[in-house]
Formats: sequence, structure tokens, C-alpha cells
Amino acid sequence: MLRHTRPQQVKANQEFGTVSYVGPAKSFSPYVSVIRYGDGGFSETRFENGASPVIPPPTEHSVTWVRVVGVHDIAVIKAVGETIDMPSMLMEDVADTTQRPKYEEFGDAMFMVLKILDMGTSRDSLTAEQVSIAMDGSSVFTFQENAANVWDTYLDRLRKGRHLGKSDPHYLMLALLDVIVDRYMLTLGKLGDKAEEMEEELFEIQTEETLSMFYDLKRETAYLRKYIWPLREVLQSLSHKKHSKKVSDYAKSYLREIVDHVKTVVETVDTLNQIATSMIDVYSSVAAMRMNMVMKVLTVVGTIFIPLTFITSLYGMNFENMPELKWRWGYFLVLGFMLALSLGMLAWFRKKKWL
Amino acid sequence: MLRHTRPQQVKANQEFGTVSYVGPAKSFSPYVSVIRYGDGGFSETRFENGASPVIPPPTEHSVTWVRVVGVHDIAVIKAVGETIDMPSMLMEDVADTTQRPKYEEFGDAMFMVLKILDMGTSRDSLTAEQVSIAMDGSSVFTFQENAANVWDTYLDRLRKGRHLGKSDPHYLMLALLDVIVDRYMLTLGKLGDKAEEMEEELFEIQTEETLSMFYDLKRETAYLRKYIWPLREVLQSLSHKKHSKKVSDYAKSYLREIVDHVKTVVETVDTLNQIATSMIDVYSSVAAMRMNMVMKVLTVVGTIFIPLTFITSLYGMNFENMPELKWRWGYFLVLGFMLALSLGMLAWFRKKKWL
Amino acid sequence: MLRHTRPQQVKANQEFGTVSYVGPAKSFSPYVSVIRYGDGGFSETRFENGASPVIPPPTEHSVTWVRVVGVHDIAVIKAVGETIDMPSMLMEDVADTTQRPKYEEFGDAMFMVLKILDMGTSRDSLTAEQVSIAMDGSSVFTFQENAANVWDTYLDRLRKGRHLGKSDPHYLMLALLDVIVDRYMLTLGKLGDKAEEMEEELFEIQTEETLSMFYDLKRETAYLRKYIWPLREVLQSLSHKKHSKKVSDYAKSYLREIVDHVKTVVETVDTLNQIATSMIDVYSSVAAMRMNMVMKVLTVVGTIFIPLTFITSLYGMNFENMPELKWRWGYFLVLGFMLALSLGMLAWFRKKKWL
Amino acid sequence: MLRHTRPQQVKANQEFGTVSYVGPAKSFSPYVSVIRYGDGGFSETRFENGASPVIPPPTEHSVTWVRVVGVHDIAVIKAVGETIDMPSMLMEDVADTTQRPKYEEFGDAMFMVLKILDMGTSRDSLTAEQVSIAMDGSSVFTFQENAANVWDTYLDRLRKGRHLGKSDPHYLMLALLDVIVDRYMLTLGKLGDKAEEMEEELFEIQTEETLSMFYDLKRETAYLRKYIWPLREVLQSLSHKKHSKKVSDYAKSYLREIVDHVKTVVETVDTLNQIATSMIDVYSSVAAMRMNMVMKVLTVVGTIFIPLTFITSLYGMNFENMPELKWRWGYFLVLGFMLALSLGMLAWFRKKKWL
Amino acid sequence: MLRHTRPQQVKANQEFGTVSYVGPAKSFSPYVSVIRYGDGGFSETRFENGASPVIPPPTEHSVTWVRVVGVHDIAVIKAVGETIDMPSMLMEDVADTTQRPKYEEFGDAMFMVLKILDMGTSRDSLTAEQVSIAMDGSSVFTFQENAANVWDTYLDRLRKGRHLGKSDPHYLMLALLDVIVDRYMLTLGKLGDKAEEMEEELFEIQTEETLSMFYDLKRETAYLRKYIWPLREVLQSLSHKKHSKKVSDYAKSYLREIVDHVKTVVETVDTLNQIATSMIDVYSSVAAMRMNMVMKVLTVVGTIFIPLTFITSLYGMNFENMPELKWRWGYFLVLGFMLALSLGMLAWFRKKKWL
Repeated sequence: MLRHTRPQQVKANQEFGTVSYVGPAKSFSPYVSVIRYGDGGFSETRFENGASPVIPPPTEHSVTWVRVVGVHDIAVIKAVGETIDMPSMLMEDVADTTQRPKYEEFGDAMFMVLKILDMGTSRDSLTAEQVSIAMDGSSVFTFQENAANVWDTYLDRLRKGRHLGKSDPHYLMLALLDVIVDRYMLTLGKLGDKAEEMEEELFEIQTEETLSMFYDLKRETAYLRKYIWPLREVLQSLSHKKHSKKVSDYAKSYLREIVDHVKTVVETVDTLNQIATSMIDVYSSVAAMRMNMVMKVLTVVGTIFIPLTFITSLYGMNFENMPELKWRWGYFLVLGFMLALSLGMLAWFRKKKWL
Repeated sequence: MLRHTRPQQVKANQEFGTVSYVGPAKSFSPYVSVIRYGDGGFSETRFENGASPVIPPPTEHSVTWVRVVGVHDIAVIKAVGETIDMPSMLMEDVADTTQRPKYEEFGDAMFMVLKILDMGTSRDSLTAEQVSIAMDGSSVFTFQENAANVWDTYLDRLRKGRHLGKSDPHYLMLALLDVIVDRYMLTLGKLGDKAEEMEEELFEIQTEETLSMFYDLKRETAYLRKYIWPLREVLQSLSHKKHSKKVSDYAKSYLREIVDHVKTVVETVDTLNQIATSMIDVYSSVAAMRMNMVMKVLTVVGTIFIPLTFITSLYGMNFENMPELKWRWGYFLVLGFMLALSLGMLAWFRKKKWL
Repeated sequence: MLRHTRPQQVKANQEFGTVSYVGPAKSFSPYVSVIRYGDGGFSETRFENGASPVIPPPTEHSVTWVRVVGVHDIAVIKAVGETIDMPSMLMEDVADTTQRPKYEEFGDAMFMVLKILDMGTSRDSLTAEQVSIAMDGSSVFTFQENAANVWDTYLDRLRKGRHLGKSDPHYLMLALLDVIVDRYMLTLGKLGDKAEEMEEELFEIQTEETLSMFYDLKRETAYLRKYIWPLREVLQSLSHKKHSKKVSDYAKSYLREIVDHVKTVVETVDTLNQIATSMIDVYSSVAAMRMNMVMKVLTVVGTIFIPLTFITSLYGMNFENMPELKWRWGYFLVLGFMLALSLGMLAWFRKKKWL
Repeated sequence: MLRHTRPQQVKANQEFGTVSYVGPAKSFSPYVSVIRYGDGGFSETRFENGASPVIPPPTEHSVTWVRVVGVHDIAVIKAVGETIDMPSMLMEDVADTTQRPKYEEFGDAMFMVLKILDMGTSRDSLTAEQVSIAMDGSSVFTFQENAANVWDTYLDRLRKGRHLGKSDPHYLMLALLDVIVDRYMLTLGKLGDKAEEMEEELFEIQTEETLSMFYDLKRETAYLRKYIWPLREVLQSLSHKKHSKKVSDYAKSYLREIVDHVKTVVETVDTLNQIATSMIDVYSSVAAMRMNMVMKVLTVVGTIFIPLTFITSLYGMNFENMPELKWRWGYFLVLGFMLALSLGMLAWFRKKKWL
Repeated sequence: MLRHTRPQQVKANQEFGTVSYVGPAKSFSPYVSVIRYGDGGFSETRFENGASPVIPPPTEHSVTWVRVVGVHDIAVIKAVGETIDMPSMLMEDVADTTQRPKYEEFGDAMFMVLKILDMGTSRDSLTAEQVSIAMDGSSVFTFQENAANVWDTYLDRLRKGRHLGKSDPHYLMLALLDVIVDRYMLTLGKLGDKAEEMEEELFEIQTEETLSMFYDLKRETAYLRKYIWPLREVLQSLSHKKHSKKVSDYAKSYLREIVDHVKTVVETVDTLNQIATSMIDVYSSVAAMRMNMVMKVLTVVGTIFIPLTFITSLYGMNFENMPELKWRWGYFLVLGFMLALSLGMLAWFRKKKWL
């Protein structure tokens, strides 16, 4: 379930500028991976158990990627953040896993907070994980809580010595963003499949579970708008702003491609939200129509038999003086009358198009 | 059914810039048609079975149209794309038949991805096919998966030597776009006819099939917005941007005409979407009103006969001491009372306006 | 009924720039009226049966109004259009009676396509007729299919020699537009009256005809938005654009007045559309409430008499050993019990506020 | 009832620029009050029975307020309007009590048409009266149909010699506008109270009168938007336009205050409209829920007694060979079985949570 | 309950510029606290019982916070307001506790009216309190009705000598705003929790109390939009306007943080409003589906037993000549027929998927 309606509550009344972790309590030890590649090949150093990360000075033809895994240890965020003079307010955002996606700049550096969406194999658990990315002219810094495998494929490619020629930090940042947006696409693809499966339930037997699924789709797409909209802003501001001078042409066309994908994602969320609303409406209409059918059956049966039963009940009375009871063909006359009556009513129902 | 909610899934985690075909698996062999017309008359050369297409150098008074049919063979796209230095990312878009409509520029060339709508003869199958169009100052390149007959009429006209005088690549491109927009109009015309037919079902016997048709119209117009909106943007950017300098005056007024048609298409989709919503609402209201009528019949019949049956049942009891049973006119008194009671209730119903 | 959802279908796959009539087949012979007034008084010449219209050269102190009645004869449109170098595409718009309202300029001339609304006396037939108006600096050209009396009152006024002093083509054009907008107002006034009449049906006996009327109002206002919106754009572009230099001050304040009227028309359409939606919603609510009332009656009658009938039926059984049947006051005891039971249930219903 | 959906109908096909009164027929004699105050103290002259009003020339330190009461006498409007060269089209607006609120300028003067809202004591009659205000640099002209007491309090204050120092026509105009906006606030306050009272009806016994009240609130707020929106535009254009140079600083901050109040009014109308929609929706839901409860009672009673009555009816049959009838304890066995059956069904209903 | 739909009513027809208290009648004595901190340490002086507050002249390295508690004593507001030449209209806003949030400037000072939201412990009482803040270059003035503890935590921090170094009035103002926005977040967090609790009621037993809760959420979020929207405008105008020159860099990044929080608040309110609408819709659908289930039970029971009861009733008639009654196996034949009939109907219902 994707429920992050409420903004953070822990930090209220706290002094401004204090860096503190907001999120579920964690106990594993965070680590910092310092990756460098370029003309000098690929190297990777891991600093664990609170060891202070050593970030080598930037060189012209190499890119440094500082990857912080585990944002619940504030000391690690501070140690890394201070190497690029990151303001304490942004460190606060890194540590606060309920922060909304945002884009900011400090000094020459760009900083952004993003959400990674995932949909479990069980298909009913949409989860959101937060990552923060900072980039000054020479290095990229990423902060995430879990050692999730989101960037593993890309990291493997770097390890195998590919992309070494493209030693451009903008390109690295875009590659990392591309992976995130592809995740959105994958997740929305699964959600779209789920919506198509749900469509097939529209005219099946109605259950509250199905209705609940429609409601969940509606709610989830409402929340997704909240997550995706700022991502779009972030990327567009990246395209048009003063930073665009620093971005290489190759990276620029890459960026345009990603912006394009984000537009697709936004449109898909909107369409799914609209579809969910329509499904709830149509489900109600189906319920009303089926009710009609049920009621018609009861009405036809009732309307035919209730008068007949009255007649039979009439001649079940025990009055001493009931002349019809003694007629020789009384019983058969009554039977005939009842037959005629029911045929007449059937004809009337047929005329009314209830049968 | 028009279901493309989900963005492409195949390409996730794939290296950026790789050209690969995304769409249903295909086996026919793609071909490239090189068409040239102008002062030197009309010529058409076809390169099949992987033969490398030879594109003649542009001349002042002729237009070249390179037509690629079959985008599942990546080699062909690359061979053609490289002759105009098309970036690999755009080749990727050409090969990806789930790409959203878009407009981009590279070097001096314009590039766009569009969808061709079609509604089968069976009237319930709305299909969308993708075409990509690129134009540098002298040639037009089109890429499509099927050798669909969308441009055949126009091609025949060229073959017959008409339009030879208008050897202007902008004009050729606009003529190709015009055919696409006319297809939208035709398809929406059919959809509008379908909507009018559906309107006639509104007050007929209610079936879940009809409701399902309303829902389909709603969903299809929701998807159509997604397809048409970017087309509008593409054409408007074409009108107002720097390219307008290169576009000849005659082509410009042609372009305005097409933009005008696209506006009509967008308005028509919006109106149809609104109409579909209203039809679902009204169908529910009709269901409620009919239910009311059915219930009134049951209530009138029940309310009249249930008390009467009680009375007859009362005198069907076998108590030894029931004085009324022995009265000479008891039976007829009861009959009279029941007649009065039912007349009274009929009058009450009439006052309540249920009859 | 106002049904023009679908854009024109006839012209698809037709060569661009071909002037052809789109609309119901017509057989009467079109004619051209050339009206001139100003310092030299008023003159009117009529060219019929294909006679080529002779349009006198403009003079300083007179205005020429060329009035084409019947746009199904393409030759006539061409003959007139060519005198002001009207592009063939605009002639195409004139002949296509399904063209959406639009505003364009060519050379020094202004051109617009408009719709005239009318609501028949029967009050359920909203019809739309197309007129096109072109104006260069000295003459006004109007094209319409029917010799409808829309401008007859104004023409009579001209014939009587009034307005001769105001020999200004802008003023003439505005006077013609004013008549059209006044028609919109009249028609919407009738539609508003109809809506008020319909409101009185809201709490009357529900019929599907009434619901159908609400739906028609909703649909008609949806279509009207489509017609009126571009008219608004047209007039506003007329106010603010480069043409405003040529428009005389007197004509300008006239134009502002018309723009003001169009705003009123747009607001009225929006309000009517919103009112129609509310009426459908309220009608459904009324149906639900009435159903409730009907069901309560059935439930009260059923709930009281079904148990009573059970009791009487119980003592109607023919078991040999049923001691109560032999009690002297058995019958009266049962009668008393049933009376007490029904009074109790009535009290319960009253407490539940069902009675 | 506030029903002004339809724009004026009377004036259609009338010659442009003709001043004529549009509104209910009136017979009282209009009058003109010329009020002057400032350094020379306060003076008030009344011109009745068609006497031509004499408007004294402006002086530096005094303000003139020309107050026309009764706009159905065109002669009076003309006599006053011509003293400030008011265009005949604006006089037309003054006389047309169905004119929408608007703001215009002529020469150095400002002109506006406004609506005064009022809600009678009976709380169900929302009425709208039109006033027009014109101001050149030295005098304020007001036109209204009724000698309504809207400005009486302010006029009394002037009579008592207060505000004499502020001999600024802008300030006078703003004071008059302030009174109008305060009226809107008062009226919306009453409407808000009515809405709160109506909220208390939401979960009471449902009547069509209550539903009708919700619908009226919805419709009235729809119409109110139409009235208030232009007022907002008028005031904002007053703040930002070229006139702002002429407006004194004190008057400017007064104007901002009024703009602020108008914003509050607009927001209040929007909120009330949204609340009305929600009330109609919730009322329908309540109807559905109550229906459910009613149906459950009928279903429980029916489902328990219908089978029991079948059993008793079974043993009421008169077959000669029915062995059970002769059993000694047959009657008691049947009674026991029926007791067990009904207890079982009650348990089932309890499990289903219907009881 | 949050009900402030109606704008103030008391002030209508009152003279402009009169400062008067609008709100519930109060009797406690207001006081003014003059707080100064900076290089010279912290000092706090309290002026009670109408004592005229003495505000020390500003010095370079200290900040003065004048805190007025109790806005129902107009004299106090005037005494304080006049020390910074606050216009009487703004004093009016301070005293009027129904004023909408607004931002204005006078001289060099900034002035704003804000609402503080709170949700009581009982979770169903959302309350709004008004505060006004004014700041010239050296001092901050706050006005509030209740000595609420909203700023107590921050004041304690100042008392303890913290923040002394940051003797910047902009920073102080932002710190006060931050506390207010954090309150919004806290309150919305509680409202979000309430919404999640309410979601769990969606598929439980339906009660009018639950529906009423959904309606309240809808209404409250409608009102909240009204409160929060202007706050957003206020803060954004603060970021972008000419004042930004005076705001220190540290304060600026603080401001951006607060703007960011306000965006989160607005998005949260919108999402909650949308969720509330969906919950009302789904609740109606659930009601319809449950009705269906109830009706099916009644219909199945009725449809099976009504014909059976007719048959038994038939043989309960007392006609003398009813041959079947004398058949030896008549009774058993009828029993068998009835068994077959009911099994048949059960099979039919199963086929219809009603069982």
C-alpha cells in the first residue's frame, strides 16, 4: 500500500537545521563506496563500520561516484556531505525518507531527492524508496537507505570497463536517473496490466474485493501524481536552466530522452486515474442493472402467484354457506380462471418487456 | 481495443543508445523504396532482402522520398538513418512501436513520430500504427512497420506525374501529414456515428453489453487524447518555430489548414468523452427509474393482496368456536369487505400517483 | 437535434486545394446580390442562373456588399472569391458546411467562418447554419447556403436609405456580426426558458422522456461550447490585432459591445451545462428517494401481515390433535394476539420513523 | 429565485445605439439628486417630474454626486449622460437592467455596471438589482432603478457633514463600491447560514423539499459566479491600469481592501458550490443506505415466515391420505420443527450481520 | 468543526477605517510582551492592564519582538501599531479574527495575516486561530488573540540564550512562520491518520455516522484549501519580490525550505480531498452491492416458496368435487412435484449465479 499522505511529523517543533533520520528504525551498518573510472581505468573502495570515507581529488579525465548506502547513520551523511559543502538543510532532506521529491542547487552543485517505485511480485504492494543525488562539476554523490539492486546492472557495466571513455559526471548522473525512470515505466506497466485484468472483472460477479481493487487503483494513482509531478519539474528545470551550459551535447539529448519518458509516465498515471474513476462508476451501474433483473424476477413471480394464492385461500375458508363449493365443476372453473389470469399477466409482462 | 496504457517494458535496464525493435515479432523482409520526382520526372527504386539502399544526392529541382517499410530490421533503419546523421536515440524511437508521438530536431533536419488510427469494418476494433517521418532540406524519410495503404493514393498521384511542379520537400511532408490527420477525422467520424447509434440504446432494454459499449467509448476517448495531444504540439511548434523561415508560403497555408483540422479532431475527442460520461450517468438514472416502476407494481400487487389473503386465511382456521362461520351471509359479507378494502387501496395508490 | 460530432468525412484522401461542396445535396440555383450604398445612394443588382457577377470598383464614399446565397455551386464561389484573390483553401472552407468557425487573414483581407444558431418553433430542434464573411478594405463578401432571413431586417434598413452616412465596410461587417450574436442570444434565451420549464419537471412524476430532455440539454450545451468558443477567439483577435489600426473608433466601440455580448453567451452556455448536470444528478436522487418510500410501504404491509397470515395458516392445519382448536375462546385469543402483534409492529415502525 | 440565465431578448434586431429600457414595466416618476460637498459644505438638490437636472461646474475642493433614481425614463439618462459625453451604447447598458457587470472607459471617465445582491427576510428569495456608476475626474454619477436604501447610510453620513475633508471623487466612488461589496458579504453570510442549516437536514428524514433546497443552493451559487467574476475583473483592472496614477494613495489602499473583500466573496461562493454538490451526493448515499435497512427488515421477516407459512399451508391440505395428520404428536413435532428453522435462520442472519 | 464560510457580517455599513474587534466576546485583559535579544543578551518586559508599551529604539546588533496577546482590546493594537505607522486598515485586519490570510506591505514594513490550525485530542475538532505578523527592518510584531503555546518552545529557546548570534529580524520572522507551517503539517498528519482509519470503515457495516465522517473530511479539506492557498502566495511573493534583497542568504534558504513545506501541505490537502470524494463514491457502490445481495436472498426464498405455497393452498380448498384429494398417493405426488419444482428453481438460480 502506498500511503504517505501525511507529511513528516517527527520534526515539528525541532530546531531548524538539525540533521536527523526520519523513517523506520534500522540497525545494519551503513557503508560508503567510492568508485572512480575514466582514463585511469576502474577502481572501487568500500568504507564500512563508520570508517571515514576518503574521496580522492577530482582529475580531468575521470569521474568519481560516491555511493552512500544507509542514510540512518547521520554521521556518514555529514562526513560525505561536508566534502562538497552541502548545506545542513539538504543533509536533513537526505536523512528524512518522507521528504517530497525536490530539486535545489548549492554553490556549483545540483541536488535532488527522488523516489524509486517498485511493485512486488504479489502485485498488490506498491512500495516507494527514496534516493538523493548530488553532483558538483566532477563527482556524483548518491544516498539511499537500502543496498537495493536498482543501480547494480549499471555498476556492473562500469566494472567491466564499459563507458570508460564517457568520463563525464553529467552523463553518469543521467544514467542513474534513467534507471529510476525506467523503474517507473516498469511499475506503471505492471499497474496497467493489473488495470486490464481488473477490467475483466467489471461484468463478472460483483464482490467487495473487486470494488476495493478499483478504489486502490484510484488511490494509488492519486498518490503517484504527487510523486511524479515534481520529478518532471526537476528534469525540465535541468533542461532549461543555467546548468544547461555545463551539460555536454551528448548528455543533453540523453536528458531530452528522459524528459520524454517522464511525460509518458505522467500521461499514463493520468489515464489510469481516469480509468479507475470510470470503473467505479460502471461497477455501480452494473450493480443497479443486476438489481433490476433480480427485482423483475421477484416481481413477476410475486405478481402472478400472490393473487392466485388469494383465490385458493378464499375457497379454503370454512364458512358454512359458500355455494360455489358445492358446484359440481366449481374446482375446475377456479383452476381455469387461475390459468387464464396467469396467462394474462404473463402477456402483460411480455408487453412490458420484463420477460 | 486500444490499450497502450503501459509504456514500453522491454528496454528497461538496457544500455542507453542501443537500437532495438520493440513490438510484436515479425518475419517478413523489410524493404526501402527510393522515390524521386521533380523536373526530371518520376523514378522509383526498390531495395529488398537487405540490399543496401542507394540514395542519390539531392538536386535543386527534385524531391527524394525514402520510404522504409518494416522497422523490425534494425540494420535497415541504421543504413537509412546514417545517411542523414540521425542520432541513434531517434533510430531507437523509430524501432520502438510503443514510442509516444514526439517532435525533435537534429542538425537541419526535423523528425517526428506519429500514430495512424484506424477503425476496422467490424466497428469495435480501434487500432493504432506508428510512423516516423524525418526531413532535411531536400529529402523526406518515412519509416513504418506495415506496407499499409495509407499513402498509396498519394503515391499513385505522384506516379501519374501530378504535383511534379511542386518539387518542395516541405510540401511533400505536409501532404503525408495531411493524409494522417484525414485518417483521424475519418476514424472519429466512425466513432461519432457509433456514439449516435449508442445514444439510441439509452432508453432501450438495458443490457450489460450496452453499458460495456459506453465504457469502451469513454476509455477509447481517454486514450485518444493521449495520442492526439502531442500531434497538436508537434504541428504548432512547426508553425511557430525557426523552421517557419524555411517553409514556403504555400506550404505554410497548407500547414495552417492541417493545424485547423487537428483542432477539430481534439474538440471532437473532448466532446465524445464528455458525451460518454453523460451516457453512463443517464443509463444509471434510467436503471433507477425502471426499478422504481417494477417495485411499484410489486408493491401495489403485494399491498392489495397480502391483507386480503390474511382475511381469507383467517376464516380458514379450524377453531370449533368461530361464530362468523355459521352466519348465513358471512361469506358474502367477507367478500364485500374485501372488495371495499381493495377499492380503497386502489384509490390511495391513485392519490399517491403510483397508478 | 444538434449533432455534428464528426468532422467531415467526404474530403479524406482528396487532393489538397480542391474546392468542393460538403453538405446535403441541393438543387436550387444560387445567386449573387451586389449591394452598394454611400454618398451615391443605394443600389442592388442580382446575378442569377450562373450569370457572372460584376463587382464595381471601390470608391471612397461608398460600401459594397457582395452577398452569395447558395454555396453548393462551386463556380459561383470561385467567381466571387477570385475578385479578392481569396486562396482556394478558404474557398474550400466556404463550400464545406461542416467547417468549424475560424478566423484567417489573406493579403489585406479578413476572413471568417461562423455558425448561425436557430431554435425552431417546436422547441426541440436546434439547428446550425454556416455563413462565411470576408472583408478587404472596401467591400464585404458574405457566403451562405440559404437565403435565410437573418440579415433581411438590416438589409431593409439599408434599402430605406438609413446608415448611408456610415459608409464604412468595418461598420457593415460588425453590423452583420451583431445580427449573428443576437441570434445566439435569442436562441440561448429560448434554451434557458426550456431549462426553467424542465426544472419544474424535477419533482414531478418521473418519465424517461423528461430524463431524455435533461440529457439533450446537456448534449446540446456540450456542442454549443464547440461552436461559440472559436467565435470568441475570432472577435478578440479582431480587437487586439494589427487590424485594429484600420478599424474606425466608432466601429471599435461597436466591436467591444459585441465581444461583451459573446462573453455573456459563453457564460450562459456554461451555466446551462452545469445546470443540466445538476438536473440529471437530482433526478437520480429523487428516484432513489421515491423508491425508498415505495419500499417502506411494501415493507410495512408485508412485515405486519406476513406473520399474521402465518398464525392463521397455523390454525388452518388439519392435525387431529390440536388442543387449541377445541378451546372455547381459542379463536378470540388468537384474534387478540394478532391485534396486539400488529399494534406493536406499528409502534416499532413509528419509532423507526417509517410512518 | 435567481434566474437570469437568458441574455436580453428584447433588443434583438433593434438598430444599434438606440437607448431603450429593458426590464419590468415601471410607472413611478424618476428623479435626479445632485449632491455637492467639500470645502463649501453640503448641498443637495432634487429634480423631479422630468425637470432637467442642472449640474454645477466642478470646483477644486468639492465633489459632485449626481444620483439618478429610476432608469426606465430614457430621457433622464440621456440628459445626465450627455453632460459627461457618455456614449449612447453605455446609456443603453444603463437602461438595460439585464446587462452583465462590465467595466469600460470613455474619454477620461470610468464606467461600470454592477449588481447588488439581496436576500429577503424569507430566506429563499435572492434578488439582484443593477446599478451603474460613472466617474470623470470631478464628479460621480450613479444610476439605479429603485430608490433602494443601499447608499442611504452613507448619504446620511455625508449630510451630517462627515467626510467633507476627503473631497475626492475617487474616494466617493470607492465608498459606494464598498457598500455594494459589503452587501455581497452580508448576503453570502446569510447563504452560508442557510447552508449550515441545510447540513443538519442531511441525516434527517429525507424529503423532496430538502433535496430541492440543495439543488437551489447549487443553482444559485452557479449564477452567483456569473455575477461576481466580472466584478473582480473590474476592480483589479482599476488597481493595475493607467488610472492608478489618478487615484490618491489613500483611495488606493481603500481599493486594495475592497479587492481583498471581493476575493473572499469569490472563494466563499466556490466553497458553497462545492459543498452543495457534496450535499446532493451524500443525500443520495443516505437514501441508498436507508433503503438497505428497509430491505433487510423485509427480507428477514419474509425469509423467516414464507417457509413457515408454506409448512402450515402444507398441513392445511385436504388430502384424505396424509398420515402425519393422524400422528398423536404431529402438531407438536411441526411446531418444534418450525421453531428450530426460524432460530436457525435468525442465527444465519446474525452471522451475515443483518441483525 | 471548521465553518467559516461566511465572511464577516458585523462590519457591513460601518464607516471605512474604523478599527473594531470582530470575533467572540472576550473578557481577559490583553498584554504586550517586548522581547529583545542579540549582542546585549536577552530581555523581556511585559505591559499589562492597559499599560502603554514602551518599545526601545532599534540597535544594530539586536532584534526586538513585540508580542501582543489579546486583539479584542483595540487600544492596545493602536498603541503598538502606531509605533510603526501601520495603516488603520491593517489594524482593522488584526482585530478582525475572520479576516482571510493576506500579505501586504506598508512603507518598508511587511505585514501578513495567517491562520494556525489545530486538531484537538478528540480528533473531531479542527480549529483555526488567527495571528498577524508585521516586520519592519529591525523589529517583529506579532498579534494573536490567545496566549496559545504555539511559539512558546521557540521563545524558551530564545530565553535560554540560543540564537542570540542570529540577531536578524528576517530570521526571527521565518522561525515564527516555520512553527505555523509545522502546525499545518502536524494537523494534516492527524487528518491523514483519520482518513486511513476511515478507509478501514469502507467495507465494514455501513452507518450514517461513517458517511457523515466522509462528508466532514470532504468539507474540511474544501475549507483548508481556502486557508492554505493564500499562505502559499504570501511566501512565494516573499521569495521573489523586491524584499528578497533585504533577506539574508541564510534566511533565504530557510524561506525556500518553508515554501517547500507549504507545497507539501497543499498537495496533501488536495490528495485528501480527492480521497474523500472517492470514499463517498465507493461507499455508495458498497451500499448498492449489499442491497443486491439482500435482494437476491429475498428473491430466492420468495421465488421458491411462493409457488409452493400456492400449490398447498390449492389443495386446502374446500370444494366438494376435487378428485385428487381422494387419490391414494395424491399427497405424496404433490410432495414429490414440489420437491422437483424447488430443485429445478435452485438449479436455475445456480445457473444465474445467484447462489
